[in-house]
Formats: sequence, C-alpha cells, structure tokens
Amino acid sequence: MNDEVFAAVAADAAERLVAHWRALAAAELPVVPSGPPGTTLKALPEQAPEKGEDLAEILDDTWRTIVPQLVHWQHPGFLGWFPTNNSPASVLAELVTAGLGVQGMMWSSSPGATELEQRVCDWLARALALPQRFQHASGQGGGVIQDSASSAVLVAVVAALNRASVGRWRAHGTEGRYRVYCTAQTNSSVPKAVRIAGAGEAVQVPLLPGTHEMDPAALAARMDADRSAGLIPAAVVATVGTTTTCATDPVPEIGAVCQERGVWLHVDAAYAGSAALCPEFRDGNAGLGHADSYAVNAHKWMRTGIPCDVLWVADHTALTDAVGLTASYLRNPASESRTVVDFKDWQVPLGRPMRALKLWYVMRAHGLEGLREAIRHDVSLAVLLARLIEAEGGFEVVVHRLGLVVFRRDTDARTRDLVERLTRDPVVLCTPATVDGRPVLRAALGSPYTDEAAVHRIWSTIRSHAAAQD
Amino acid sequence: MNDEVFAAVAADAAERLVAHWRALAAAELPVVPSGPPGTTLKALPEQAPEKGEDLAEILDDTWRTIVPQLVHWQHPGFLGWFPTNNSPASVLAELVTAGLGVQGMMWSSSPGATELEQRVCDWLARALALPQRFQHASGQGGGVIQDSASSAVLVAVVAALNRASVGRWRAHGTEGRYRVYCTAQTNSSVPKAVRIAGAGEAVQVPLLPGTHEMDPAALAARMDADRSAGLIPAAVVATVGTTTTCATDPVPEIGAVCQERGVWLHVDAAYAGSAALCPEFRDGNAGLGHADSYAVNAHKWMRTGIPCDVLWVADHTALTDAVGLTASYLRNPASESRTVVDFKDWQVPLGRPMRALKLWYVMRAHGLEGLREAIRHDVSLAVLLARLIEAEGGFEVVVHRLGLVVFRRDTDARTRDLVERLTRDPVVLCTPATVDGRPVLRAALGSPYTDEAAVHRIWSTIRSHAAAQD
Ligand SMILES: Cc1ncc(COP(=O)(O)O)c(C=O)c1O
Ligand SMILES: Cc1ncc(COP(=O)(O)O)c(C=O)c1O
Repeated sequence: MNDEVFAAVAADAAERLVAHWRALAAAELPVVPSGPPGTTLKALPEQAPEKGEDLAEILDDTWRTIVPQLVHWQHPGFLGWFPTNNSPASVLAELVTAGLGVQGMMWSSSPGATELEQRVCDWLARALALPQRFQHASGQGGGVIQDSASSAVLVAVVAALNRASVGRWRAHGTEGRYRVYCTAQTNSSVPKAVRIAGAGEAVQVPLLPGTHEMDPAALAARMDADRSAGLIPAAVVATVGTTTTCATDPVPEIGAVCQERGVWLHVDAAYAGSAALCPEFRDGNAGLGHADSYAVNAHKWMRTGIPCDVLWVADHTALTDAVGLTASYLRNPASESRTVVDFKDWQVPLGRPMRALKLWYVMRAHGLEGLREAIRHDVSLAVLLARLIEAEGGFEVVVHRLGLVVFRRDTDARTRDLVERLTRDPVVLCTPATVDGRPVLRAALGSPYTDEAAVHRIWSTIRSHAAAQD
Repeated sequence: MNDEVFAAVAADAAERLVAHWRALAAAELPVVPSGPPGTTLKALPEQAPEKGEDLAEILDDTWRTIVPQLVHWQHPGFLGWFPTNNSPASVLAELVTAGLGVQGMMWSSSPGATELEQRVCDWLARALALPQRFQHASGQGGGVIQDSASSAVLVAVVAALNRASVGRWRAHGTEGRYRVYCTAQTNSSVPKAVRIAGAGEAVQVPLLPGTHEMDPAALAARMDADRSAGLIPAAVVATVGTTTTCATDPVPEIGAVCQERGVWLHVDAAYAGSAALCPEFRDGNAGLGHADSYAVNAHKWMRTGIPCDVLWVADHTALTDAVGLTASYLRNPASESRTVVDFKDWQVPLGRPMRALKLWYVMRAHGLEGLREAIRHDVSLAVLLARLIEAEGGFEVVVHRLGLVVFRRDTDARTRDLVERLTRDPVVLCTPATVDGRPVLRAALGSPYTDEAAVHRIWSTIRSHAAAQD
C-alpha cells in the first residue's frame, strides 16, 4: 500500500478541489459539457492496466478526462432538477469516513458509528422541529440515514405492507391485494418503490381542483371503495414540496384520513424538508403528528453531499419487523440484549459505511445558524429571479415557492424553443417539465455558489435567448 | 463557505489517516472498543450547535470521541464476517468524488460519470473473465455499481418478476404467485430482498447431501411442483462463496435447470467473486454463461471502500423495463435518443453520486497485478492459519476455502466458551456462526494490514484462550 504518497497526493487533491470550487464560483467553467455521447468512453482505454499507476497521474487524468465531461452541480449557473448540495465540511467528512473504512451494519460492528447516527438524526429532528416521537431519545421512533429518498420510501412502504398484512406479508408477499396511494404530482421514485415492493401500480388520487395537491376527500373515497372491493389500503405517500412545482399535499387532512383507517402515512419532503430549519418555513410540518414516517434529503438542500437522506419513523419496530433478519453469522450478545440499534434492520442493504459522520461535520461546521442562513440565502435568490421574470414581458412565473421558480414564455412554442436553446447553452442549466399539460422551465436555486450576481447573469442569458426567438 | 481552511484541514486529515493506518498496521489499537452501549451517545451533546465550529476542532473530536468507539475493520486482527476492504487509492477517490459533488442519475446529468462507470464495469468484467455478454461493449448487457449485494439482488429479483409476469407485474405486483429459490446457506440479504420485492418467503431448496450446495435436481423438482400448483418460478439465486462456509452452488447445473424453464438466474458472488481476478481461482465462473445477472462486492475483497457492489446483467432491458421510469422533469433529448445509459433505471434510487471514480482509481493504482497479488496474499494467510489450527490438538478446521477458515474446538461447549472469550478480547475479532447445527468460529483473511506476523499473533491469542479453558 502506498501510504507514504497518500498524504501528499490527498493534499494535492484538496488544493485542486479548492481551485475547482473557485473556478466554479467564478463561473469559469461551463455548467454542461459539450461532448457528444461516447466522448469519455473513447478517452478511456478498453482494458484496465496490468501494472499499478501513480496516484498523482490518476489525479491528473481525472481533471484531464473526467472533469471536462461532468455537469457541474455546484456551479452557480446550475438550476436544474433539485440541487445536490455540498460544502467543504461534507467533503472533509467523506475523506475521513473513507479513511476510517468501518462498516456499521450493526451496533456491534461499529458502536460509535451507530450511536453517532442515532444522535445526529435526533439533532436534525429537533432542528427541523419534527414531532418528538421521531427521535431515538423517545424510545419508540428514530432516524436512519438512507442513500436516497427512493430507498426511504421503499422501506416505509414495505413496513406499511407488513403492518397492514397482520403478519401475512413476510410469508406470502403482497398477494395483489394491497394499495399504496399518491398523486400524479408525486415524485417518480414513489410509484417506482411501490412497484419494487410488489404492490403494482400506485393509485393516483385526484388533486384538489386548481392545485397540485392531493384531495383528501377523494383519497378517503378511493380507499373506502378499494376496501369494499376487497383490497387493503396499506400506505399513503404525501409530499411536502413536489418536484415539479414544490406543492405540498394537505398533510393534516390526509393524516386524519389515514389515522381513521389505520393506514401508514409516509411524508416525502426530499427537497422542501430542509427549509423547516427556519421557523418561518415550517408550514410543511403541519400534520406530521399523524405521520408514520418522514424523509428529507440532506443532500438536496443542507450543504451535505450525496448520498444522505434521513428517514424517521414513529415506531421503529414497524420497520425492523418488516426488514429485520439476523442469520447465525450476524448474531451477537449486544443485538440479543435489545439495548442497541442495528441499522441493517432499517434499510435494504446489509453492509453500510459510517453514514453519520458527514451530517455531524456539516451540522457542526455550519451550525444551525449557518444552515438556516444558506436556506434563506437561496430563497432570497429565488425571490430575485421571480421578480426579474415577472418584470419581463412575454414571460410568466407559473409557481414560485421556496427556492424554486417555475416559469414559461407567453406561448408553448416559445417555451419549447427556449428549452432547446438553453439545453445547448453551457453557462446555465434549467430543466424543463410539464405543468397542467404545458411546458415550463424550472429554476431551483440552491447551488452553494449562486449569488445575486449569478442570478443576474443567468437571467440575462435566458432573456437573450428569448430575445433571439422573435 | 470555508474554502480557505479546507485545503489545510484536509491535508491534516490525510496525515492523521496515515498515522491511523500505521497504528492499525502495528496493532497499536484494539480491534474492538470496550465501551458499553451508550458510550458515544453520552459523549455527544443532545443538541446541534447554533454557531458553526472549526473544522480542525471537529477533526480533533473525531479522534477523541468517535474513533475509540469503532470496530477497526482495517486492523490486522480483524477477521470478522467478510472483510470490507480499503486502500489509499480508494480513499483518495472518495475525496475527489465528494469534492466534485456531481449527481449521475442520468447520462445527461453527468455524461462523464456515466461513461466512466460503463468503462470500469467492462474493465472489471474482463478482469474477472466474466462472459462477454455482461459488458456494455456487447450492446446487450452491462454493469452498474450498486451500494450493496443486497440492493443488487433486489433489482435482479424485481427484473425477474417483471420478466416472468409477461407485463402484469408493473400493474399488479406479485399477486402471491411468484417464487424465488435459494438455500438455507444463502446470505440473509437474499430472503430479505425477496420479501421486499413482495414475493414472500424465498423457497429454500434442499442441499446436496453432505454439502452446503444447492441440489439442482431438488430445485428442478420443486420448481415443477410449484408450476403444477399454479405458481410461477421467477428467479433462482445461486451463491459463489456462501457467507458461512464459502460454499459454491453448482451453477452449471442450476443454470441448465433455469434455462429449460425460462427462469432468471442471479449469481451472488459478493465475497468470492473477487478471487476470479486470479486465473487459478476461477472455478466460481463455471456456468455463468447461463446467468442473467451476477454481483460482486468490490468493497469486500478488492481494496475498494464500502459502498461498491458491481451488478452485471446479460440483458439490460430486462432491468430497465422493470425499474425504469421517466417523469416529465427527467425527460431529455439524450435519453430519448436511446444512445446513452441512464443508471437511475438500473437501481432503486433516483439520484446517485459519481460511483465509478473509486473503482477507476483502485484498478489503476493497484493494476490488475496488484489486485491479484492482494488476493493471493490473503489466500496464503488463510493457508497459514488453517495449518496452524490443524497442527493443534483440540481444534478442527471445518472448512477452509479462499480467504476463509472455519474452525471449532473439540467440543461444542468449548467452542461456545471460546467464542465468548474472544468476544471480550480486544486484539482479535473472529465472528461465530453455526454449521450443520454446531457452533463454529469464522476467520476471514482480507484486512489489508494482516500479514504472517499478524496471523501468528492472532493464533497465539486464540490458543492462549483455549489453553485457559481447561
Ligand atoms: C419530492 C422528491 N421526492 C423524492 C425524490 C427522489 O430523491 P432520491 O434521488 O434521493 O431518490 C426527489 C428527487 O428530486 C424529489 O424531488
Ligand atoms: C455471500 C454474500 N452475499 C451477500 C452479502 C450481503 O452483502 P451487502 O452487505 O453488500 O448487502 C454478503 C455479506 O457478507 C455475503 O457474504
């Protein structure tokens, strides 16, 4: 092992990263690469080398071959999809996590990793003002770090199926009888998770007229009809901050419908959940008292690199009853004493890295004040962008919520044409979507280097493309 | 953002990691911490700080509070479970991956990340001498990096269910009719994945008498009986290198049974798969021509940190038909051209980090020669340990394959007592299991710092505990 050179090369890599971040901050790099499909493939040899190569050479090659073909999610002109945040604290934590190289599947496989995760999940639950019962300290609930909101909703749905089946699910599976409810506005990860869980197509509950929010009365009616037809409503997935328009389902009313019927309520707050760090952005917490599980992607809007989704459950035994399994080679006295948490039973994978160090570093390095400031900063940039758009003829702000601004041109043809022009522009990345059947552009503010000057630059780029249309 | 201090703190962290690795290599640290449950929880404040703290202080605290409560998987005395490997190249790659902070859900969300992954999966397929059709370059198959073997078998099972249902599965789920087959020796992640996929309890096929290997004739009989009973055999999971005894199911015969019946064959080679880097350890590749999917944990035995499992499929459309889903906000011209790979459709999560950089760094830094040398080194240590055990009265080697030595004392009472003594010993970690109803100890060689001297130290520790028994 080349330990000797590691420290020097790692220091070099850190310097390069700082230079890279500065180049991004200064918008000296394009957001989107220009190479056609196959560019990177062609640049890489067809076979792995037989002999080892120097780390310094591989590092060079990273900047020569790979970096120019990346979409720079941390670029100030990156407004695509939802952000995947980052910060030096998060990067440092990944270095340390990798270097320590422990595996935290069970308490006994690394006690400190497990307890750190319990603690930071409690920290975050408190910082987000989530119900107390989601905390490990409550004794009944707790948080666990997943790789993604998709994996979080998958295990939540699976726990719901198990609970709804009164014990049959483990042996017999879904039997074509269980139903999971969401809406057409729910992120695609939810119908995907429902399929993966063997429950078929998720039921799309109608929206409240004129909104992108689930209609609780329609939900209740649909559940009752399904029950009458011999089906078993197992779970509802409500969203706080949908992907297309950052809409929020009426969780208090949905929760009441679920509670009356004993149905699991999972709340997907992948993006908007982080905003609850700020007291003024806590509307999305309404009704969480009814929720069985709740997930937020710290990697979307909390200066924490991907992957880092936190899933909280109100009753952890519902989760561990469903996905817990301990083979003979995993048995150990600590687990059997039932005084410790074994996170393997809270997730799909068996093995897992020390997942919590990153969130610990980020929460400490930024402090809650720093994380709130970041949210407020991004929200203020969205306000600025929305104002600029509204002040312009021939543009319309369709929706503006938190860090998201959804807008379009005066005609759909012009919107589509603008999408195409922007797709080819390397200095700004906005991603298209469809709202109420019409094409829109989404601008999600949250890339850590985006500032007022960047918003003005972005807007003048968009305007100049629009001006060229007519 | 504290970019200014980042480079300095990262350099410091790298130095500390090197010092940590040296301390591990010199066995100056215990493998297992001694603190009771709650030790780390108690050492951490109950609330996150309001104000940001210095990265240097957080780094200090990591070594003060967290490191002493970890199980050191990279310690030369760590022989527990299966290894989770590591190397400086892997750690460096994690630093760079985190620092670049891109999200590779689709080709268009980071072309270089996707194409690098295609390339390194092909590199590895070739280095392991896997069938050509598993390569992206074949046009039909391809590899994808998953977090774990559990997630790999989950998506493989889901693809199998979809294929077996001839289109019904997406809409109707598993309907209680599909069967997935494995054995009692299969890793717990497999029955767990089958449950999560909504297919209920995996069917445990009997073993060939006197072995820990699946009986292909019993498999065929069971499948045919199930089919006669109106059930649909969807998938078989065969193992190359089981967790307890590193047994290998007869894949050629199982493959023939599957092929005759059009049933998906997934081969789980989480641990032993890496050994196929060496031509002399390629027995496990026999019959892979019949396999629909194959997975190996690079993070177990390929000097690559967790998480890094590679899943190959022979027909990638089987996977993407099952778990592919593209909402309006994910549509893009490259995906629609069908000339690119979108890895979101090959896995459970939507978002994903740049997963391939780590494997690229490791394969280049070590070279295939270096990776083979590491495998041979670990296998030779297992040979040494097995010899030492066999030469000792009152001990028995139950199984010795590749890097795994399974052993016991002359009576079960003594084995159980030895397990207990070793659990309390901080300098060696062997994990217990049950083989044919009798307690055993497993010693898995593969921690990167274990060498001959370490094996002698480990053995003399075990011997001295045994000597104290009588
Ligand atoms: C509301 C919402 N839920 C879930 C997801 C899926 O997140 P992940 O990529 O972590 O699976 C997204 C992704 O953008 C999202 O916006
Ligand atoms: C044979 C085998 N398969 C699967 C797994 C599960 O691997 P993972 O932790 O990556 O899910 C293991 C873990 O040790 C294993 O030994």
